[in-house]
Amino acid sequence: MKWYFVAALLTLLTSSQFATLTYVDPSTYQIMGNLKIVTTGILFRLFLRRKMSNLQWLAIVLLAVGATTSQVKGCGEASCDSLFSAPIQGYMLGILSACLSALAGVYTEYLMKKNSDSLYWQNLQLYTFGAIFNMIRLLWDDFQVGFNKGPWWQRIFNGYTVTTWLVVLNLGSTGLLVSWLMKYADNIVKVYSTSMAMLLTMIISVYLFHFKPTVQLFLGIVICMISLHMYFAPVHILVDLPKASKETSVSLNEISVERLVES
Amino acid sequence: MKWYFVAALLTLLTSSQFATLTYVDPSTYQIMGNLKIVTTGILFRLFLRRKMSNLQWLAIVLLAVGATTSQVKGCGEASCDSLFSAPIQGYMLGILSACLSALAGVYTEYLMKKNSDSLYWQNLQLYTFGAIFNMIRLLWDDFQVGFNKGPWWQRIFNGYTVTTWLVVLNLGSTGLLVSWLMKYADNIVKVYSTSMAMLLTMIISVYLFHFKPTVQLFLGIVICMISLHMYFAPVHILVDLPKASKETSVSLNEISVERLVES
Repeated sequence: MKWYFVAALLTLLTSSQFATLTYVDPSTYQIMGNLKIVTTGILFRLFLRRKMSNLQWLAIVLLAVGATTSQVKGCGEASCDSLFSAPIQGYMLGILSACLSALAGVYTEYLMKKNSDSLYWQNLQLYTFGAIFNMIRLLWDDFQVGFNKGPWWQRIFNGYTVTTWLVVLNLGSTGLLVSWLMKYADNIVKVYSTSMAMLLTMIISVYLFHFKPTVQLFLGIVICMISLHMYFAPVHILVDLPKASKETSVSLNEISVERLVES
Repeated sequence: MKWYFVAALLTLLTSSQFATLTYVDPSTYQIMGNLKIVTTGILFRLFLRRKMSNLQWLAIVLLAVGATTSQVKGCGEASCDSLFSAPIQGYMLGILSACLSALAGVYTEYLMKKNSDSLYWQNLQLYTFGAIFNMIRLLWDDFQVGFNKGPWWQRIFNGYTVTTWLVVLNLGSTGLLVSWLMKYADNIVKVYSTSMAMLLTMIISVYLFHFKPTVQLFLGIVICMISLHMYFAPVHILVDLPKASKETSVSLNEISVERLVES
């Protein structure tokens, strides 16, 4: 199976994301992360041939806009680098990260749905290749510094506390849940879930970390909720369908020529 | 005709707006001004009985949200009063202003469309009553200070320059254009127009007054554009209508029972 390709993509993606962070500040990085919503939608259409209505395309763009709105730096926050003042490589790497993320997600969904292999067997393949690629990467880093610090396997758990292991457990569970989404839902459900999770995190931070609630957080939530309805609500709930379609769908058994002539 | 009622409403409205400004800062005032988009939609439905689909309601909310987003105070701006720290009377007056604005707009549309009187005759009635009400208001202000400064008609053009007269001309033309909208379009077209005008003003300010372009301005524009499409685009462009309705609407002349049985 082509799981090695997904693993390679994901390794490339994380490298790209770290490289982006060497050029842009964290908030610009976070805002550029929202681009992957749009790139995922595009590849969803191109590669998986899943058609979306124009309204659903508007919903996808709106989701990215809503997520970005909630992340806009407000009045009086400490560091104030403009969104537009990073080096050009930062933006190019940000766009690259968005494309790689979309490609990895779409290809994962394709492989997950391709056959009815067990979810866990598919994950095992993916993560085995992932581990191998990352071990190669760690060996390469060691090689670059002439093994000065000793091989990576002697250092890999340095500084790990209970909290670190909890984070590892958390991320592992997240990976499983996302693969479940890919197999039984789709990439669009995934991008909505991650965006809602981001908003939920911001709300919880208000209570846990005394994060100051801002008007842009409230606006972002409203926008994402509207986007959610636009994408997933049945059409007949959103719009008033032309009378003919309602009659035709309701009364397939009572076909009368007179009614049609009237409509 | 009931133009005196509209004139009274508008006089109340301007008083309410000035009163709001004594409690809140200008940016909070501007943001609260967007509430009138939603109140206008509500009264449009309640008083003018104009039905809107759920999608159109979402579009109305989105327009208000988009306008607000563009007005969010960004990182590093000079004065930084929180949106949420004004006295409660400020918010109550803001809501009152939104309601009065909606009521005035909706009642104006009702009167404008009620008969086929000339637009100019209708405007004349409205503004005559408006002038009378405002003259009464000015007399009252004078009376309150015991005519210390002399009657208002001696002071009314104090400080007027060419620019002032141009502003007067501009506002008068705006009033005429809005009444045209009320007569031949509707209140919803009006709220979209004023919001787009606000965004256009911000864009022009970037060039004329070196206003710093912000990400929230860009986001607000995208949101308002999406809202515009959601509200006004024909349904069959936005969504994929059920197959039956497309066939029924396209081939009204070729009515065949077999096709219906198939769908």
